[in-house]
Amino acid sequence: MKPMDNKAVIDILKSVRSGKLSLEKAVAKLSMCYDGLEFANVDVGRGLRTGISEVLFCEGKRRDQVVTIAKSILKRNGRLLATRAEQVVFEALSEAVPRARYNEIARVITVNPHPRRVRRRIAVVSAGTSDMAVAEEAATTAEFLGNPVDRIYDVGVAGIHRLFGRLDLLKRANVIVVVAGMEGALASVVGGLVGGPVIGVPTSVGYGASFGGIASLLTMLNSCAPGVTVVNIDNGFGAGVAAALINKKRK
Amino acid sequence: MKPMDNKAVIDILKSVRSGKLSLEKAVAKLSMCYDGLEFANVDVGRGLRTGISEVLFCEGKRRDQVVTIAKSILKRNGRLLATRAEQVVFEALSEAVPRARYNEIARVITVNPHPRRVRRRIAVVSAGTSDMAVAEEAATTAEFLGNPVDRIYDVGVAGIHRLFGRLDLLKRANVIVVVAGMEGALASVVGGLVGGPVIGVPTSVGYGASFGGIASLLTMLNSCAPGVTVVNIDNGFGAGVAAALINKKRK
Amino acid sequence: MKPMDNKAVIDILKSVRSGKLSLEKAVAKLSMCYDGLEFANVDVGRGLRTGISEVLFCEGKRRDQVVTIAKSILKRNGRLLATRAEQVVFEALSEAVPRARYNEIARVITVNPHPRRVRRRIAVVSAGTSDMAVAEEAATTAEFLGNPVDRIYDVGVAGIHRLFGRLDLLKRANVIVVVAGMEGALASVVGGLVGGPVIGVPTSVGYGASFGGIASLLTMLNSCAPGVTVVNIDNGFGAGVAAALINKKRK
Amino acid sequence: MKPMDNKAVIDILKSVRSGKLSLEKAVAKLSMCYDGLEFANVDVGRGLRTGISEVLFCEGKRRDQVVTIAKSILKRNGRLLATRAEQVVFEALSEAVPRARYNEIARVITVNPHPRRVRRRIAVVSAGTSDMAVAEEAATTAEFLGNPVDRIYDVGVAGIHRLFGRLDLLKRANVIVVVAGMEGALASVVGGLVGGPVIGVPTSVGYGASFGGIASLLTMLNSCAPGVTVVNIDNGFGAGVAAALINKKRK
Amino acid sequence: MKPMDNKAVIDILKSVRSGKLSLEKAVAKLSMCYDGLEFANVDVGRGLRTGISEVLFCEGKRRDQVVTIAKSILKRNGRLLATRAEQVVFEALSEAVPRARYNEIARVITVNPHPRRVRRRIAVVSAGTSDMAVAEEAATTAEFLGNPVDRIYDVGVAGIHRLFGRLDLLKRANVIVVVAGMEGALASVVGGLVGGPVIGVPTSVGYGASFGGIASLLTMLNSCAPGVTVVNIDNGFGAGVAAALINKKRK
Amino acid sequence: MKPMDNKAVIDILKSVRSGKLSLEKAVAKLSMCYDGLEFANVDVGRGLRTGISEVLFCEGKRRDQVVTIAKSILKRNGRLLATRAEQVVFEALSEAVPRARYNEIARVITVNPHPRRVRRRIAVVSAGTSDMAVAEEAATTAEFLGNPVDRIYDVGVAGIHRLFGRLDLLKRANVIVVVAGMEGALASVVGGLVGGPVIGVPTSVGYGASFGGIASLLTMLNSCAPGVTVVNIDNGFGAGVAAALINKKRK
Amino acid sequence: MKPMDNKAVIDILKSVRSGKLSLEKAVAKLSMCYDGLEFANVDVGRGLRTGISEVLFCEGKRRDQVVTIAKSILKRNGRLLATRAEQVVFEALSEAVPRARYNEIARVITVNPHPRRVRRRIAVVSAGTSDMAVAEEAATTAEFLGNPVDRIYDVGVAGIHRLFGRLDLLKRANVIVVVAGMEGALASVVGGLVGGPVIGVPTSVGYGASFGGIASLLTMLNSCAPGVTVVNIDNGFGAGVAAALINKKRK
Amino acid sequence: MKPMDNKAVIDILKSVRSGKLSLEKAVAKLSMCYDGLEFANVDVGRGLRTGISEVLFCEGKRRDQVVTIAKSILKRNGRLLATRAEQVVFEALSEAVPRARYNEIARVITVNPHPRRVRRRIAVVSAGTSDMAVAEEAATTAEFLGNPVDRIYDVGVAGIHRLFGRLDLLKRANVIVVVAGMEGALASVVGGLVGGPVIGVPTSVGYGASFGGIASLLTMLNSCAPGVTVVNIDNGFGAGVAAALINKKRK
Repeated sequence: MKPMDNKAVIDILKSVRSGKLSLEKAVAKLSMCYDGLEFANVDVGRGLRTGISEVLFCEGKRRDQVVTIAKSILKRNGRLLATRAEQVVFEALSEAVPRARYNEIARVITVNPHPRRVRRRIAVVSAGTSDMAVAEEAATTAEFLGNPVDRIYDVGVAGIHRLFGRLDLLKRANVIVVVAGMEGALASVVGGLVGGPVIGVPTSVGYGASFGGIASLLTMLNSCAPGVTVVNIDNGFGAGVAAALINKKRK
Repeated sequence: MKPMDNKAVIDILKSVRSGKLSLEKAVAKLSMCYDGLEFANVDVGRGLRTGISEVLFCEGKRRDQVVTIAKSILKRNGRLLATRAEQVVFEALSEAVPRARYNEIARVITVNPHPRRVRRRIAVVSAGTSDMAVAEEAATTAEFLGNPVDRIYDVGVAGIHRLFGRLDLLKRANVIVVVAGMEGALASVVGGLVGGPVIGVPTSVGYGASFGGIASLLTMLNSCAPGVTVVNIDNGFGAGVAAALINKKRK
Repeated sequence: MKPMDNKAVIDILKSVRSGKLSLEKAVAKLSMCYDGLEFANVDVGRGLRTGISEVLFCEGKRRDQVVTIAKSILKRNGRLLATRAEQVVFEALSEAVPRARYNEIARVITVNPHPRRVRRRIAVVSAGTSDMAVAEEAATTAEFLGNPVDRIYDVGVAGIHRLFGRLDLLKRANVIVVVAGMEGALASVVGGLVGGPVIGVPTSVGYGASFGGIASLLTMLNSCAPGVTVVNIDNGFGAGVAAALINKKRK
Repeated sequence: MKPMDNKAVIDILKSVRSGKLSLEKAVAKLSMCYDGLEFANVDVGRGLRTGISEVLFCEGKRRDQVVTIAKSILKRNGRLLATRAEQVVFEALSEAVPRARYNEIARVITVNPHPRRVRRRIAVVSAGTSDMAVAEEAATTAEFLGNPVDRIYDVGVAGIHRLFGRLDLLKRANVIVVVAGMEGALASVVGGLVGGPVIGVPTSVGYGASFGGIASLLTMLNSCAPGVTVVNIDNGFGAGVAAALINKKRK
Repeated sequence: MKPMDNKAVIDILKSVRSGKLSLEKAVAKLSMCYDGLEFANVDVGRGLRTGISEVLFCEGKRRDQVVTIAKSILKRNGRLLATRAEQVVFEALSEAVPRARYNEIARVITVNPHPRRVRRRIAVVSAGTSDMAVAEEAATTAEFLGNPVDRIYDVGVAGIHRLFGRLDLLKRANVIVVVAGMEGALASVVGGLVGGPVIGVPTSVGYGASFGGIASLLTMLNSCAPGVTVVNIDNGFGAGVAAALINKKRK
Repeated sequence: MKPMDNKAVIDILKSVRSGKLSLEKAVAKLSMCYDGLEFANVDVGRGLRTGISEVLFCEGKRRDQVVTIAKSILKRNGRLLATRAEQVVFEALSEAVPRARYNEIARVITVNPHPRRVRRRIAVVSAGTSDMAVAEEAATTAEFLGNPVDRIYDVGVAGIHRLFGRLDLLKRANVIVVVAGMEGALASVVGGLVGGPVIGVPTSVGYGASFGGIASLLTMLNSCAPGVTVVNIDNGFGAGVAAALINKKRK
Repeated sequence: MKPMDNKAVIDILKSVRSGKLSLEKAVAKLSMCYDGLEFANVDVGRGLRTGISEVLFCEGKRRDQVVTIAKSILKRNGRLLATRAEQVVFEALSEAVPRARYNEIARVITVNPHPRRVRRRIAVVSAGTSDMAVAEEAATTAEFLGNPVDRIYDVGVAGIHRLFGRLDLLKRANVIVVVAGMEGALASVVGGLVGGPVIGVPTSVGYGASFGGIASLLTMLNSCAPGVTVVNIDNGFGAGVAAALINKKRK
Repeated sequence: MKPMDNKAVIDILKSVRSGKLSLEKAVAKLSMCYDGLEFANVDVGRGLRTGISEVLFCEGKRRDQVVTIAKSILKRNGRLLATRAEQVVFEALSEAVPRARYNEIARVITVNPHPRRVRRRIAVVSAGTSDMAVAEEAATTAEFLGNPVDRIYDVGVAGIHRLFGRLDLLKRANVIVVVAGMEGALASVVGGLVGGPVIGVPTSVGYGASFGGIASLLTMLNSCAPGVTVVNIDNGFGAGVAAALINKKRK
């Protein structure tokens, strides 16, 4: 949407130009339609740049609701990223939208992802096999937004040698997402090995004193490797978006 | 330090080449000197790229210890960033190192900062005047590492209009650090307004149910604006490093 | 109920007047029937003014229990507000009480709500679509108690411009209820924009470090906008009552 | 500040009227000066109505800083409310501003309070003598903002009869602030006795499992008396402002 | 079991008396059979006095396990108290033990309770109808152990007058058990009104910031009425035993 | 104070008898002087029975305040129990009241304690030497209220045999107070050995994961020995009062 | 796997010896294949010594996944330890692997356990019958790894005499694992009685303020008996491995 | 103390042998003198084996108290280990006991440590320089108890290569103590590299979300490397004792 599409503001300005509206009344009216101005701004600024306006969080929504909203997003944007979608939700959606694709592990549905935008790569690293669902959510999100992604899975610190065997992939990455539950120590180790930005995603994998991911969250927040930042527990989607924002072409 | 400087490894290889050392023994010896290899790697990889090896955390150290370590770092690197330094610590240091500079609010000492490396700008935004110490720690750290920084202070959400008056600065930034105590809502608002990476720094400013920064930390971790990542409470230094890592020249 | 309706006390006083009862015994008896005195007081004071005695909390009660209690309340008061009522509970009740009305989103049943009592308006603002159940509980409660309510939904801080487009509704409100989960920042933003009382309702919407609403609760308690008060997590009913108490006609 | 004082906006509109500025450019320019519009709005809307712009939080500020800021506020507004001010801070200020008044228990300084604005009364109730500092902060704040206040102190639930002896004061109040530490049960008891809005202020008074006020905070949030809302621990100021907002003259 | 029944010890002593066993070896052997001595002691000391050895906690046990253990206890003691027993568990048991009685609300099964042992009465007070299950568990336990119990239910502090109407029952009690969820304020109010021991039982009744009973627990621990002691959340059984121990005949 | 001493109520009743006061007005007047009725009640019921009205909590009070309040209590009651009193407070008080006695470890001042009221004994048991301050507060409080007390100190579970050597003292006690910090296991062990009421007092003794007494508090609340009740962390005074209430002569 | 099996490293060294590879390039290549070196090391060092590489955590895996992984482990190692396996999982596995054995209480499957390796014994002690599942997980794990195990169950501190009857078993153990929920006091008592290493396993058995095992965990961490170490809540497997590592033959 | 020294038991047995005491009375008497038996047992069993009876915890004790207790321990045992001792405490003690030695960093005083008992080595590993105080407490404790100790300090995971350079020391250790604050990830990494028992000691080093050591504690409890056990935060002493117990000569 271009600035000139904001009809309400244009009408006010036209009335000012034609002398129908006093300056004082114009100021008052303008303060009431900021919404429109800002909406245009956001649409151009955030939505188009990051594709976030195309995201549908499926958890807690009924199948028919998901299909309706998905179709509405597709009509407006031509693309769709739907997260936390169960198999049955995908099946319902794929009837209406046959070209929808489903990542079963990540529980993510995509339609018409963005074409490759950048050459720089994002690495998604995970500690254990149980962290893979969150890792895949991050990876699929970043790929949907047009980024090439390298997956480095099951390299937790209990067998730190496994990580060293993948140092080449880690070092060619422009941004690294580290996904880990239980004690979450992997983010610090990776942050200490490489020179780029590291985003930690604690997961709720674990039991007892893992307290649903708190242990891993605190570990990452207290990382002794500076440069590590953290997102919410199990928030693979958020990490994928943050990695894409960091990775995108700069001004 | 170049790979060829790693004497122990070279010696082993020379012995292998000359036939003095069997292959089997060489393998065993090599597994013992990984430290050297890795140390070289880190020096080239992380230290030089981020300047982190030049940092001195002063809290809990005696004045004379700080001066000794600072001089050692300066001898090795030629630069110094010292955080959490009280006025008296600076005074002791500046006797030995007259060109040392002190940011009183940030409690940061710098010697010979990195020259400007990039044109892209980092914005540091803070909610209240009490958050300024942490904000300045982030800003000074990023500047030391060669980044141009814009400061946007005292724009908390209780008077959200103040933020809107600085939108131009926000929008030209390549990375934004948001520093906020109490309820920490500023990170979400900024994350919703701009299209680049946002790093939230919760501060311990507040009382009662702010629980020393937990309230602000949780707010930022739960941000409904995707793309916001978080560092530890009061960790301005870590946010400055993370912002510099994101902002640096890409491959 | 007027003071003269308190039969037990009147009887004691009559016996004193007629000389049948000694002063000493009268004092002892009176101290035993304070309940009656106080009950009368409460009935006139609280119950009639707020309609709270007509409320039935359905969660954890069986269908037949709800119907029995509901009929008893209706017989005594002629009105009913039943909260946390599932669809099946409503169906059972509407057989016995055909004029019962059901708000499916709020899970609230009403019978014969209070007629409009005041002209001043209450605004109920919510951050995301998932917060709507709690917002509707607040709105329906306030309406049942005779207040006109404006609903302003889905205006969370990740897209703060949406809120600005509804400033007129916000500003004409006498009391504002702000319902938000995840990071709950909306209460502070609204509190900073308007000049009236704001009641924050944190919701349990979110995951991971939202800790079932704690994140949002702490955010609202630490609001930097003075004048914001808070109720329990998901307590839309309590917020509706508090708003109605503030909004009612003054002495 | 009246709308017509917003020079930047007026200049844009004048250029539009004279034809010097195209409509498209005018829209873009207007989106940049929202700050001015909004600032005017806030000044008229919030500041004037509540007097919050005249408040100075002294904790963590040096004596000379307090005096400088206080004089600046007094020059702009003609009034001042300074909270969390130690005796020495008051002494420093009263040299510069002789008409400053000090409430030693509340640690609050006032200069030229608002004249009485309303006849409706606010009651401030406290549980124990140790809660009096917070209670006085609430009372003094409400009085500064032009409200008549009744103090009902030391009526905690361990001797509930003391409260009943003051029922007349409670019942004539339009808003009630209840201040209590330890188990904080007083808010529920008061909320069950009266028919108006009750604001609970948990205090950090207590030891052991009071956890610095958490016990009292949770008690008040879980109050079984609907209509009770809560502010942060020890936040007497916030409760005073909220009570004043509720008590003020309605549209 | 009488001391003389402890065969192992008697055998050792007999061997000492007959000169078959040296003193040194006897000491060593005796230190190995303390179990028997102590077991006898406990049986006489604790088990007989409190009947605790007859208690069966059913939660987490299968129906057939409950029946087997119950029959074993009945054979040994002639009495049975089984707590946390679902309806189906009772049905299974009553086939085998027709004289078993079931308190459906308390989920307690009793067989052949102790006859009335004391004249002094225990009062069990509860705040809301949802607290009744825990209150009944306490009451039934105390009754099983031979105590007369007065039930005073649904007298929470939101309508404190209801409590005053039952002061006579409260005052004739020798021990009072107060059961309350949500904010748990009732224990303090009762503790302030009477002069005997008060045992608080926080319940998990509530939602949001009641945190499964923590709010109520903290309230009771911080009670400003000295003499109030507390048991675990929902632990009606423990409170019933403690009340019985206090109420029993003294030496 | 006997019921007939309540002058206000008697006056009302006299006016009714003489016909000077209508029944309606009498009812209203009576509801206003409940305070008096209740105050008398409390005086007879609680204050006289437990001596709690004679207690002065010194923490956070200035020396001169303590002396003033102490003298006022002594004038009214003839006795005094002052807890949490530092040495300097005692010195100031003993100048004014020479017969004051000081327990340095308990930090408790007593004047004219109650004479021995009962023959039944209270045992105060403590785990480590650091718990002795709290144990002495409990013991001194119980003694002030007229109870004979046996002290059994330094018998923590790390050397459980020490406890067994004192079983005779434990078994002759009518009530047992168990004071323990760190892991607080002693309360369960004692509760399993004896057949009477046990009151646990967790202390803040410990470090790290003792969290200022939370570890010990949770241990005692979860005691597997039924009949154990708990008071707040470090609340020796409360335990002493509760023990005295249990130990006193029964109806 | 012996060092000479590491083909990649050997190839590099051969190339160096033959002069085909320069020293500089050899250093670079070697830093890339550390993985191989380390992997070999771990295989010899950890896997063979502890059998940990043969463990399969079944929780959260589908039946067919368990069977597939189990067969792969068996092919490689010839042995299998599978924890947290439900009955149906065992049934599926035993079809494919008839010699599989199942411990129903521990929910552990074993195939071809290690033969007895040491004569020294491990004792596994548990407090209540509900702790038996975790205790059996520890015992079965230790037995699988070739250790003789003594089980001492149901000896919680509420009846401490039961423990004393088993002192002989406790004292002949080389390592003791103590499993306890609720208040977890047993670990301290055992740690105070014996002179060897004690490993505490808190369990999630309990309700209310046991907070899913936190109470027991804190108790054990604060044990006043030095020498007690702790593992995660319900982590019987971890305790079994730790006990086996302590018990194994020393260099 | 040998069993025959237990006079009370011997006297009872003598009376039995001589026929002066009936068997029944002997049983009763014996149950009263368990203390003596057990005391002897503990002295021989625990104290002599571990030297724990010689430990003096100085924190919270006055200088003269420390000297008195220290002299008493030295008279009885001839050795002393005093932890948490400030410099001034050492100075006071060394006047009375000139051969006392002081480890300033560990704040530990030793007198006449146990001679070397075993050849097997204990390694103490620490993450950062700030963790050194706790690490030294562990090392000094283990050395006092007669163990050879290797110190491997400042090898935190932010520069994991430093750890690899010390693998030889790690691998020759029989037990490893890992001391780490902040995120505490080092314990997992070490646990994954070696095949022996690892004891984790979380420290309170850190700020913000390290919560005084909770972050590190949770990390270690959730370690994905089985075989890691944990002690309380900052409990270097406990780790030293546990390591010594594991390291000592086996039966």
